[in-house]
Amino acid sequence: MKTAMTIEYDGAAYYGFQLQKQQNSVQAELEKALAIALRQKVRVYCAGRTDTGVNALGQVVHFAAEYRQTIDELIYSLNSLLPRDIAIRYAAHVPENFHARFSCLAREYVYVICNAPYRPGTLWFKSLWLRGKLDWAPVRHAAEHLIGEKDFASFTKAALVKSGERTFRRIDAVEIIESTPYIFIYIRGSGFLHNMIRILTGTLIDVARGKIAPESLREIVGSADRLAAGVTQKPDALYFLHAEYADYPQQEAMHWLRRLLLGETKV
Amino acid sequence: MKTAMTIEYDGAAYYGFQLQKQQNSVQAELEKALAIALRQKVRVYCAGRTDTGVNALGQVVHFAAEYRQTIDELIYSLNSLLPRDIAIRYAAHVPENFHARFSCLAREYVYVICNAPYRPGTLWFKSLWLRGKLDWAPVRHAAEHLIGEKDFASFTKAALVKSGERTFRRIDAVEIIESTPYIFIYIRGSGFLHNMIRILTGTLIDVARGKIAPESLREIVGSADRLAAGVTQKPDALYFLHAEYADYPQQEAMHWLRRLLLGETKV
Repeated sequence: MKTAMTIEYDGAAYYGFQLQKQQNSVQAELEKALAIALRQKVRVYCAGRTDTGVNALGQVVHFAAEYRQTIDELIYSLNSLLPRDIAIRYAAHVPENFHARFSCLAREYVYVICNAPYRPGTLWFKSLWLRGKLDWAPVRHAAEHLIGEKDFASFTKAALVKSGERTFRRIDAVEIIESTPYIFIYIRGSGFLHNMIRILTGTLIDVARGKIAPESLREIVGSADRLAAGVTQKPDALYFLHAEYADYPQQEAMHWLRRLLLGETKV
Repeated sequence: MKTAMTIEYDGAAYYGFQLQKQQNSVQAELEKALAIALRQKVRVYCAGRTDTGVNALGQVVHFAAEYRQTIDELIYSLNSLLPRDIAIRYAAHVPENFHARFSCLAREYVYVICNAPYRPGTLWFKSLWLRGKLDWAPVRHAAEHLIGEKDFASFTKAALVKSGERTFRRIDAVEIIESTPYIFIYIRGSGFLHNMIRILTGTLIDVARGKIAPESLREIVGSADRLAAGVTQKPDALYFLHAEYADYPQQEAMHWLRRLLLGETKV
């Protein structure tokens, strides 16, 4: 029997999602809680292996195991066992051929920027604080060059490209949502390379600052050269927002922020 | 020369705003930073003395001191000196008769509830998590009985009433803003008694649960009896949102959340 779960976590205390030999990870915490709740060892698979410090509001995982609890009982006991910065928000039985990674149709991330003269003092958003004028109109033009199925080798670690990993990905949408002093960079696509969204964000901020012309984005993509793109921005302002599947609708887990950012419109 | 400042803080690490002999407070941190930045001892006065654990997005303070820095330099150096859970978001010179407490025309607070079957896992909102069905339509009717200049003795510590403190206050507005799974209870008034908003929230939640009829609010207010009202809800889901003055407009500090909750409409 396969079960999918939608998970929220604050990445600050974890060395990313994926199991690590020496360090703590979200996966390790989930597997530890599942082992206690289900009295058996289970392996967990995720939609997107978030980096150290990256947060999630709608990460999706699946596991295969037989158990007697109802979905409600399962979530409740896991949430009692998990640390307070990780929580299951929704779960459902899924078909046997479901896979959190391979069945995923689209992934959505949001990068949060606080553009204000002085730094924020609360944790409402773990955001990237930027002073000075940022112009988002040219960024919207720049973003058009990112849409579609493309080679995004410029937006990942050079070592990854050298290793021969396939660097083609599909980007469906890049939306810049301004709600002064916050700016949300929302990205939806088939999947993302290591560091890709943090490098895309660094590059789009260069456009907002007037350091890169919007039309340069076409050449930056075309160059397949990491050095042509902007810096890798910090991880703790990045949130895995949503993963979409044909057979795991998870309406109840649709997060407040996602609805707020995208309104009622379908992407 | 008098200066007013708008301050944001996460209350978790502080024993309230006001200076304490043994414990750390927001006031102590502000006065410590000011002493270093201005090379003189200054006393700070606030709009609302928040309890232990209560947060602020728009607390206002003032102090009297002569200094050479510009407002921008002052904020920047204070924010470098303050712990990361306290930040100055805005400041301005104000007339000599300005007083953060006595010149304040209205204070606004918001209490954040997360009404979801399972607990949240991120720090996006420090909220009160409530399971089960809550109906907010009767709460809006109940809240009408709170509007106006009234004796709110039922909504504060009995000891405070016994001590003879004046318990009349003016409530201008109570708005219930639903953004599933979050509910924001927004309250604007002349000022609030010790624990008043946390007890009001406890009482309104009883109405939402169907445990108290909306029209009972009139009698609960009329009774001037603490035992007639609901429980005192926890402090860390409460935020001091805004303080209003005739001569300290602070437009730049108008917070994202306030605009989001209230839209463009003036209260």
